[in-house]
Amino acid sequence: MSTHTDRLHDRKFVRTFFTTPTAVEGEDDSAKMLRRAAQLRGMEAPDVWVPDNEDATAPSMRDEGVENMIDVISEHGADFPGEIHPRVVWHRESPTTRYQGFQQILELADPDNGAVEHLDGFVIPEVGDIDDWKKADEFVTIVENEYGLPEGSLAMSVIVESGEAELALADLREEMGNPSNNLERLFLLVDGEVDYTKDMRAITPTGELPPWPELRHNTSRGASAAGLIAIDGPYDDIRDVDGYHERMTENQAKGMLGIWSLTPGQVVEANKSPLPPETGSWHLEVDDREVELEEEDGRYVYDGDEIDLEEASDDRYRLRVGSDERELDGDELTQELLDRTSYIPSLNDIVDSMEEFEAAKEAGKGAIAMERSATLAIDGIEVDISNDRMWDEATYQAAQTPITLFQDVYENRPDQHEKLAEIYGEDLVERALVVG
Amino acid sequence: MSTHTDRLHDRKFVRTFFTTPTAVEGEDDSAKMLRRAAQLRGMEAPDVWVPDNEDATAPSMRDEGVENMIDVISEHGADFPGEIHPRVVWHRESPTTRYQGFQQILELADPDNGAVEHLDGFVIPEVGDIDDWKKADEFVTIVENEYGLPEGSLAMSVIVESGEAELALADLREEMGNPSNNLERLFLLVDGEVDYTKDMRAITPTGELPPWPELRHNTSRGASAAGLIAIDGPYDDIRDVDGYHERMTENQAKGMLGIWSLTPGQVVEANKSPLPPETGSWHLEVDDREVELEEEDGRYVYDGDEIDLEEASDDRYRLRVGSDERELDGDELTQELLDRTSYIPSLNDIVDSMEEFEAAKEAGKGAIAMERSATLAIDGIEVDISNDRMWDEATYQAAQTPITLFQDVYENRPDQHEKLAEIYGEDLVERALVVG
Amino acid sequence: MSTHTDRLHDRKFVRTFFTTPTAVEGEDDSAKMLRRAAQLRGMEAPDVWVPDNEDATAPSMRDEGVENMIDVISEHGADFPGEIHPRVVWHRESPTTRYQGFQQILELADPDNGAVEHLDGFVIPEVGDIDDWKKADEFVTIVENEYGLPEGSLAMSVIVESGEAELALADLREEMGNPSNNLERLFLLVDGEVDYTKDMRAITPTGELPPWPELRHNTSRGASAAGLIAIDGPYDDIRDVDGYHERMTENQAKGMLGIWSLTPGQVVEANKSPLPPETGSWHLEVDDREVELEEEDGRYVYDGDEIDLEEASDDRYRLRVGSDERELDGDELTQELLDRTSYIPSLNDIVDSMEEFEAAKEAGKGAIAMERSATLAIDGIEVDISNDRMWDEATYQAAQTPITLFQDVYENRPDQHEKLAEIYGEDLVERALVVG
Repeated sequence: MSTHTDRLHDRKFVRTFFTTPTAVEGEDDSAKMLRRAAQLRGMEAPDVWVPDNEDATAPSMRDEGVENMIDVISEHGADFPGEIHPRVVWHRESPTTRYQGFQQILELADPDNGAVEHLDGFVIPEVGDIDDWKKADEFVTIVENEYGLPEGSLAMSVIVESGEAELALADLREEMGNPSNNLERLFLLVDGEVDYTKDMRAITPTGELPPWPELRHNTSRGASAAGLIAIDGPYDDIRDVDGYHERMTENQAKGMLGIWSLTPGQVVEANKSPLPPETGSWHLEVDDREVELEEEDGRYVYDGDEIDLEEASDDRYRLRVGSDERELDGDELTQELLDRTSYIPSLNDIVDSMEEFEAAKEAGKGAIAMERSATLAIDGIEVDISNDRMWDEATYQAAQTPITLFQDVYENRPDQHEKLAEIYGEDLVERALVVG
Repeated sequence: MSTHTDRLHDRKFVRTFFTTPTAVEGEDDSAKMLRRAAQLRGMEAPDVWVPDNEDATAPSMRDEGVENMIDVISEHGADFPGEIHPRVVWHRESPTTRYQGFQQILELADPDNGAVEHLDGFVIPEVGDIDDWKKADEFVTIVENEYGLPEGSLAMSVIVESGEAELALADLREEMGNPSNNLERLFLLVDGEVDYTKDMRAITPTGELPPWPELRHNTSRGASAAGLIAIDGPYDDIRDVDGYHERMTENQAKGMLGIWSLTPGQVVEANKSPLPPETGSWHLEVDDREVELEEEDGRYVYDGDEIDLEEASDDRYRLRVGSDERELDGDELTQELLDRTSYIPSLNDIVDSMEEFEAAKEAGKGAIAMERSATLAIDGIEVDISNDRMWDEATYQAAQTPITLFQDVYENRPDQHEKLAEIYGEDLVERALVVG
Repeated sequence: MSTHTDRLHDRKFVRTFFTTPTAVEGEDDSAKMLRRAAQLRGMEAPDVWVPDNEDATAPSMRDEGVENMIDVISEHGADFPGEIHPRVVWHRESPTTRYQGFQQILELADPDNGAVEHLDGFVIPEVGDIDDWKKADEFVTIVENEYGLPEGSLAMSVIVESGEAELALADLREEMGNPSNNLERLFLLVDGEVDYTKDMRAITPTGELPPWPELRHNTSRGASAAGLIAIDGPYDDIRDVDGYHERMTENQAKGMLGIWSLTPGQVVEANKSPLPPETGSWHLEVDDREVELEEEDGRYVYDGDEIDLEEASDDRYRLRVGSDERELDGDELTQELLDRTSYIPSLNDIVDSMEEFEAAKEAGKGAIAMERSATLAIDGIEVDISNDRMWDEATYQAAQTPITLFQDVYENRPDQHEKLAEIYGEDLVERALVVG
């Protein structure tokens, strides 16, 4: 079924958007960082690489930046495993800046310079309302026409970093069908929270960025409605790997599966984050926190201090959670622990469940119960828990997202095949490629 | 005052949206569930009953499902205490499915089949942008015209389960006035979080649904702006009654007063949830949780471990909350406890306050202070607290929502009169019917 | 650079929106409150004063309210240090009320009455969709024309207190450029949560207002996109100063820097809240709460019970946080504490950082590391921590918001100069006025 929201680009998913300064002053070779980034491979290489001729590069170095990009991309572009989308300058409130952006695109896309055959598109920052997006689109159309490239062959991604641009997200679906533009070239919608914070004039006591949950929702929804891909902005506390993962987990629950990366280390984390884990795990809710249980001989053991369990008498148990203590019979205890546990399935678990549902569907069933059971051990007492979840067509399709992403990664990133096999094993990789 | 956002339908409020498969394979009577649901009464019967010929019924059983609905609704429809709105198939991206949906509506509404006189409308799932809603509306118009029914007599409700449909919520108010459609027939806006999660391509570690607070806000706002009624999607952990109630409380604070129910048990909970409680209760905030205080001889007693209170010396008290211990004089203690307590008023309390304000307004006052006081007892020490809240016209009107809902339920659900009298007493029911 | 979202009014920021009843029955002088409010000065005087002829004043007193406003504003208006914007009556669903609103504006703006020269604009409550906003705008245009005032000289602010008005926020930017209206007169977008709660038909158990985070986001975004100023609604628990401050901190992180005030006491709090603190402070995260550390002899001391630290052996430490205990070496301990601490900079700190960045930019650098270090002391053990944050142009500009606000306050509120000098010292005030 072909639909109007089919994504028009090769990648259906983008996990990583990695920016690199195009010219750094004071180095022997001002293109050194660019050259190094162009040679990243495997998990360190992003899905989308963004030589950044805007904020990451000093204004005085941007002309040199264009030359550097042409140099490095024409030399290394053919072998780069991800897509390449340079960021040029742009500003909704400055025709000067917009004209500079146009000139940078003209130069980068000139076939005589040898880079354009490796370029997948351009990233336009600081866009305003939809008419401003059209101005950038029109420049790219003119450039395509000038150099005899097919209309729409160069993608366009935008940084959403103003209230106006956030509002434009609601107009995309309608405007993209309009014959007087080529907005079908749109690819990524990227949030830029630093400039957005400035544009919204927000203040936090510590100077940290506000979380902007509504912006991220609206970007993700705009992407969904228009067949585009939503990407979150930079996470600038580079040391804080846990925080980066928490942010990605939050984003994924909003349908925003990609994120900006500032270093190859962040690229590795962000490439892996939306892929299902290699092993499943049981978690126990204690005091609003989730504690992962350790597996020992097939049992899942809680050995913290915040829960105590002891047998009071025959089939009576005393359970203390924090300062709340209760006496329960065996069934009540099982129920209480079931309510407090959750299971995070592995890739293998997800593939199993999908295969099982596919077989049931083949056999004419619309819905089946998926069971998940385990033995918990708390203070030496073992409790068997088991939960059922009904799967119907809708559950099946919603569960499919991480698998479709896995397949998209596999198809587009041969340089990561080895690493995927190492993480999951060859057999599982093959099963994951055919399910769904 | 007649306004453009007056709701056009009989019900001003809908608490419950209960779906039933239309045909289940492997049973002697494939319409068994349908037949049982049609005979629900009282708190087990929903405000809106939805024989579900889409996701709840296997595709191969849907033709039989149409026949079953005709059978059961023509036999039991006249006596069913709620409204009846079958769900037919539809998809924004499939003309085949849309044509099937049209055929199902044609058949169900055929006066020769005897069901249409008991049908209040249809539920259309998987709608896209507003033009897609109009396609469904047009089919219903054609059906009404074909069978000589007045235009707009069959209601239309939609399931919002895509980013496009969420965006369409902002267009409703404007489009509903357009003479080239009959969108005035719109009734319920129902969130469908499972398919929405798929459409948004969201991922959570456990596979649970994301909370989607923005979707629920936008649905509720769309309903408010267009005079429609907002309903939350299914809560599929049927065992988890507490979780279902928490979800409903959250929804109510968003103006979304109705919810999907999957079982008669859930219908009972959801029918009761937005009605005020029969008795008021005092709650004490301890460690970010609310603990309900028990009434004993007119005092409200806290007997947990997390708060200690003792007299230090004359009018000096030592109060420990968690690991935070302080010495306070009597006034400070009263203030501290006042800050930590809240009161959840009963239906009787709300009716009292409204009557009091109405009398004050009659006497020419624009605002009055409503006092609420209680004696708390902690570790044997009694503390009297009392708080004032200013009521003006706006407070009065905002407080009126649960009463208006109560009145709407009473007017439209005679089968629940007995239960309401049992819960609240005849006298209070009568006072609640005339206040406001 | 002049832009279409430049704010058209004198004030670029409004911290406080203070309403006063225009006529109170039963007093010797029904204008007493108005007269007292008109004479507020310094921190007790709001940026925008709103004589309120709508909800704060009984309907029967509103004609007298118009006379009172004329009296008091013509007498005291010239000396009032803030702007004056009376609220008149209006309702999207009542032409009667709208016509009364028009008459009130006509009377207040009549040059013969002597008040108009001190009036900055009008506040229109209960607006609906954008066409309703235009009706109010048109009345003001007619009034301006009638009295020979320049078109657009009277500002218009609206109370957003319906789903329709919330939706209209997305249309503002486009509509304000339309030659057939004068919506460029728009100034403040003010949320009115009590009536909004009624319009959305929301229910909370205690009757408290829901938090409505999406409404506040959408109002702030609408203001940002259209060059207007966003203001939060009234906080009616007047005793609860901490709660008022928490609300303002939340709002500021949404870009909503102003709030309604109901008393001169609230005005003082709200005037100070968005200004940076006079002294910086270190905070430690304990159990999801932030605890401010006390400075003693240059060290920042934690003396609570929830964290214990002791030396286990040479360069090994035992750290307990709540019930979680770990052994760490010196580097791990430093890292752990660094992760748990945050610094809230003072005005002096912000000015220092901006000056430092400006000097670096002058010297040709695009980004510099800002270091912040401190010695923490827990249970007598001292730990030195230090963190770096990269500042580039975007960080610099985002950090600038509180400074721009400070400068706007200084320029427009000479009556607060003395207080600002008292809080920050003359020197720092002068440096803050020239930076940025």
